[in-house]
Amino acid sequence: MAGPENINLAILGAGRIGRVHARAISGNDRAVLAAVSDPIQAAADDVALHFGATARTVDDIIADPAIDAVVICTPTDLHADQIEQCARAGKAIFCEKPIDLDADRVRDCLKVVADCDASLMVGFNRRFDPHFMALKAAILDGRIGKPEMAIITSRDPGAPPADYIKRSGGIFRDMMIHDFDMAVFLMGELPESVMATGSVLTDPEIATLGDFDSATAILRWADGRQVSISNSRRAVYGYDQRIEVHGSDGMVAAQNEHPINIEVATSTGYERPPLHDFFMTRYVAAYANEIDAFIASMTQSVSSVPTGEDGLNALLIADAALDSARAGKSITIAS
Amino acid sequence: MAGPENINLAILGAGRIGRVHARAISGNDRAVLAAVSDPIQAAADDVALHFGATARTVDDIIADPAIDAVVICTPTDLHADQIEQCARAGKAIFCEKPIDLDADRVRDCLKVVADCDASLMVGFNRRFDPHFMALKAAILDGRIGKPEMAIITSRDPGAPPADYIKRSGGIFRDMMIHDFDMAVFLMGELPESVMATGSVLTDPEIATLGDFDSATAILRWADGRQVSISNSRRAVYGYDQRIEVHGSDGMVAAQNEHPINIEVATSTGYERPPLHDFFMTRYVAAYANEIDAFIASMTQSVSSVPTGEDGLNALLIADAALDSARAGKSITIAS
Amino acid sequence: MAGPENINLAILGAGRIGRVHARAISGNDRAVLAAVSDPIQAAADDVALHFGATARTVDDIIADPAIDAVVICTPTDLHADQIEQCARAGKAIFCEKPIDLDADRVRDCLKVVADCDASLMVGFNRRFDPHFMALKAAILDGRIGKPEMAIITSRDPGAPPADYIKRSGGIFRDMMIHDFDMAVFLMGELPESVMATGSVLTDPEIATLGDFDSATAILRWADGRQVSISNSRRAVYGYDQRIEVHGSDGMVAAQNEHPINIEVATSTGYERPPLHDFFMTRYVAAYANEIDAFIASMTQSVSSVPTGEDGLNALLIADAALDSARAGKSITIAS
Amino acid sequence: MAGPENINLAILGAGRIGRVHARAISGNDRAVLAAVSDPIQAAADDVALHFGATARTVDDIIADPAIDAVVICTPTDLHADQIEQCARAGKAIFCEKPIDLDADRVRDCLKVVADCDASLMVGFNRRFDPHFMALKAAILDGRIGKPEMAIITSRDPGAPPADYIKRSGGIFRDMMIHDFDMAVFLMGELPESVMATGSVLTDPEIATLGDFDSATAILRWADGRQVSISNSRRAVYGYDQRIEVHGSDGMVAAQNEHPINIEVATSTGYERPPLHDFFMTRYVAAYANEIDAFIASMTQSVSSVPTGEDGLNALLIADAALDSARAGKSITIAS
Repeated sequence: MAGPENINLAILGAGRIGRVHARAISGNDRAVLAAVSDPIQAAADDVALHFGATARTVDDIIADPAIDAVVICTPTDLHADQIEQCARAGKAIFCEKPIDLDADRVRDCLKVVADCDASLMVGFNRRFDPHFMALKAAILDGRIGKPEMAIITSRDPGAPPADYIKRSGGIFRDMMIHDFDMAVFLMGELPESVMATGSVLTDPEIATLGDFDSATAILRWADGRQVSISNSRRAVYGYDQRIEVHGSDGMVAAQNEHPINIEVATSTGYERPPLHDFFMTRYVAAYANEIDAFIASMTQSVSSVPTGEDGLNALLIADAALDSARAGKSITIAS
Repeated sequence: MAGPENINLAILGAGRIGRVHARAISGNDRAVLAAVSDPIQAAADDVALHFGATARTVDDIIADPAIDAVVICTPTDLHADQIEQCARAGKAIFCEKPIDLDADRVRDCLKVVADCDASLMVGFNRRFDPHFMALKAAILDGRIGKPEMAIITSRDPGAPPADYIKRSGGIFRDMMIHDFDMAVFLMGELPESVMATGSVLTDPEIATLGDFDSATAILRWADGRQVSISNSRRAVYGYDQRIEVHGSDGMVAAQNEHPINIEVATSTGYERPPLHDFFMTRYVAAYANEIDAFIASMTQSVSSVPTGEDGLNALLIADAALDSARAGKSITIAS
Repeated sequence: MAGPENINLAILGAGRIGRVHARAISGNDRAVLAAVSDPIQAAADDVALHFGATARTVDDIIADPAIDAVVICTPTDLHADQIEQCARAGKAIFCEKPIDLDADRVRDCLKVVADCDASLMVGFNRRFDPHFMALKAAILDGRIGKPEMAIITSRDPGAPPADYIKRSGGIFRDMMIHDFDMAVFLMGELPESVMATGSVLTDPEIATLGDFDSATAILRWADGRQVSISNSRRAVYGYDQRIEVHGSDGMVAAQNEHPINIEVATSTGYERPPLHDFFMTRYVAAYANEIDAFIASMTQSVSSVPTGEDGLNALLIADAALDSARAGKSITIAS
Repeated sequence: MAGPENINLAILGAGRIGRVHARAISGNDRAVLAAVSDPIQAAADDVALHFGATARTVDDIIADPAIDAVVICTPTDLHADQIEQCARAGKAIFCEKPIDLDADRVRDCLKVVADCDASLMVGFNRRFDPHFMALKAAILDGRIGKPEMAIITSRDPGAPPADYIKRSGGIFRDMMIHDFDMAVFLMGELPESVMATGSVLTDPEIATLGDFDSATAILRWADGRQVSISNSRRAVYGYDQRIEVHGSDGMVAAQNEHPINIEVATSTGYERPPLHDFFMTRYVAAYANEIDAFIASMTQSVSSVPTGEDGLNALLIADAALDSARAGKSITIAS
């Protein structure tokens, strides 16, 4: 039972990521998972059973004043509407990225959130990865001086299904958007322009869907700072996620996490196992930290970041990058 | 509530390690934490509250036929008696190491377990560490040929309190015993003899307690195989746990786990953060895997290892090592 | 004295790099350093003394039929003329990069070389670094499938003097040209276009010289392959030189060479010494391998690569990159 | 020609190691290789040809007052006699280890050296390895506090030929003697006792020669400090040479040198090439540094270390280790 000091949360969407958040909530001393909804009743029931919650409808959850906060894990096209509903009902809101694939729709949604004076946190999980948090802390501690250049590498083990790609908004809005958010997070302000290129190197079907599977971009800030980003939908050695930031006084790098830390040496050399093969394994600590931060934003009255504006900014960079890849020239990022 | 397919477990001892096991049980789909006991009522109540269990007395728990299995996390001097009680009551038993500090008492206890045909698993958690499991798997897969030599390093961040050391049985029975178990586990059979030395290098108080804080040992097998082990109660850079095994066709090594995987490079060089500062953080995955293995031994009728005999064997090696350190000569290990 | 089987070489220019090549020649069993020239007589005499050569004038050397091959280490603005002189005299030629900073002058020079049927090798030393050679060999061995993307990082410990920068042709022609050559070498053919950006982040004086100290570029091949390159004239932790190539079946990376391979662990973490602080220390093996390859091209009748055309191609990419950085758009590379 | 400021050196023994030293001498600005001797005339002539020396007899060389210093690279059984000859002739002496396999013979030889007031340096090359030098420097700089424990690993790619083993003095006097010298060098004083074990794990022929191929030892100092050493005549992944030293305030480790610093990542994991396959490749810098130190001891009047006493001490430890391995008990080291 939730005591008066506890936060009652509900999860909308009992799929893969919804279950990850359910586990994180159950591990937080201040939080109770009170309710869960899913159009597939069995999915909602299962989460309810394992984490002591009640399966209910979305409307029922939003209408219940005992629910303090809502974690939105539904399909992307429902996000903006559900954020607005929750904002109007006075809930604290955590929403998986993106808010919407259309920047204008995002702007409208954020206006509703602001008008309702609601709190909205967007799920850029990488900001909560322990290694990337330590990297950011090293920058804030002044260990590398002013951050000036960065090299970000994100390579997925494999491409998502065609159905997903169709609705994803494309590699810049679906995948590199995480790196755009990290670049802003690490450099501390918005870039001025972007140059990007994209191509299809791993699977011709991706071309028929109008998307790229390989992309490189250069972000440039007004004062000349530069970040390069490399993305691929293929990495046979596992989920490759690295960041290095160069500053006036040094460099800080977060290397890949090797889940199995052994090395075998034989006559042909040294061998280590591959990386994580799945983003949810790689970012298990990040997801828990993220929900802890959301709960802390309610219990400790700290602001909830990444904000809706962070989500909008990353989308605007992604839109500009796609324009750049199409036009073959540098594109100024909208504000 | 536990369905018919679930295992009902009880924890004796709601201290630090008891809580770790409670969390592991709650994360296992097949298990229910039904009861917990502790002489400090508040400790038992707190575990009961967070994990949906009932706080009861030890006798009450052991007498309850609905309790399938017991996890013993009480002080060492209670272990053997409680194992015997649980064995007679037909419980499956998981007991934190050691069973007892006296080899004869362990032998008597194991006889009771055998007479009752009870299942007993001893908590040598390191066997369940993902890295050491992978190391063992590499050996079993034949990747290094026959394992012939090994180098094991265990260095603790700091010495335990004097009160703990007094009751610990000394560095060989309390600390190096883990490495002795790993050596047997990795080489696949018992060594024939041991040469060891110990001294006090970190804190003179440890000498007044009749113990060492620094020790080195060489295990030797009947066929000439050799394992060297180095222990210290001090490692200012964190909890240092490494194993390398050399075989006829190669080598496999498990390096330390670096919890924060960043590196900062400045004009003075490259810097990485220290290691884990606590064994429970270092072995968080091992503790969960260990309880999963205990539960699997019940649900899948696999044998529960490490067995009581494994616990006895490690103790016999520790006793011989202490004799060797005192006598300055090689000591044959009792069987 | 050189026997009939030996190659007689002369070095033009007894400066820093000339001495490096003199040492490499003395270490090659098939070669004899017969002559050296330098406008500063003492410099020529010193090289002559230490390596058993004779100090002579350039014209005298080129006119001497006993000199089989010439190693040109003079200032850049003399390279093209001296190459042409040597070609006409029937010498095998090794010339430090670049042939010239002007592509048309390079074309004219290469025409003379071709007309004389002379052999010309250009000093892109990095192709002969043992690590990068192994990286290239891994690609040729098919270990990563078809190379498709690459990330190249070159960061110098510090900027060269203003006088050098003025005559250098700028960061793209002086520094990133090495990376352009490596990109062509690794991907196996010329890119189609380049997008680049440059700025001044380390020293405002560099802006007054009309140059950049920080630059990022994306090369794109006709089939969509992409290479990103990051350059800086500052790296306080040492000379940073890394390449990673991603292929259809995997990735191969050459990390930095750490000249002092120790690690100190204390309560604040792990520390390693910085990298090499100078390119000549970093590439000492590369310089020796390069001269060995030049000599082998004569004794074993293998072709001398990198060729003059390789030098021209890298310059053409550099020219296009500078155009791109100025125009803010993708530039097609001339052929 | 050597000027008045140059040191004239002669090498006795133009075999493998003699040639290594010839190259080092030719690279030293202060030294001239004036003479070389070898019972195989062609070997002496070849070294003479390549390095500008004269091939002469041993007696002729020792009798020549123009020869300042002699580098002894002859078979072990000639070392002590030649050292004495050179000492009586007033030469500075560098002798490959060991001086002799018999401690009493070494004592006699060192007495002659002392009586002649001669300078003798013994070739423990590892003290001059850049990584181990940096490790020692870190200790001297106080970065780890007082050195208290160490773990030394030396594993050879393969066993030497039976003929060599017969004359080698056995694994403790031939191979582990290097580690004994390093232990003394790093801990700063002689150990009090040693416990050791040896066995034959790689090749039964070695047993028929009365030797071991696998050995482990624990050195113990009077104040309780401990060093463990692990040796094997087999390491299929290359020449394995590692040292870690633990002090009161931290740890310093020298890892293996990886000559080819690439990593290939595929679906099966990450792979790095093997280590050096030969000690002369691994220690190429050490050999050059060693000769530089010998020459510096003459030109700069610094003492020549490792001294003859260092050579004797390492031998006495090796003798004690062999006794320990035979007796199965701790042996006090003679002084």
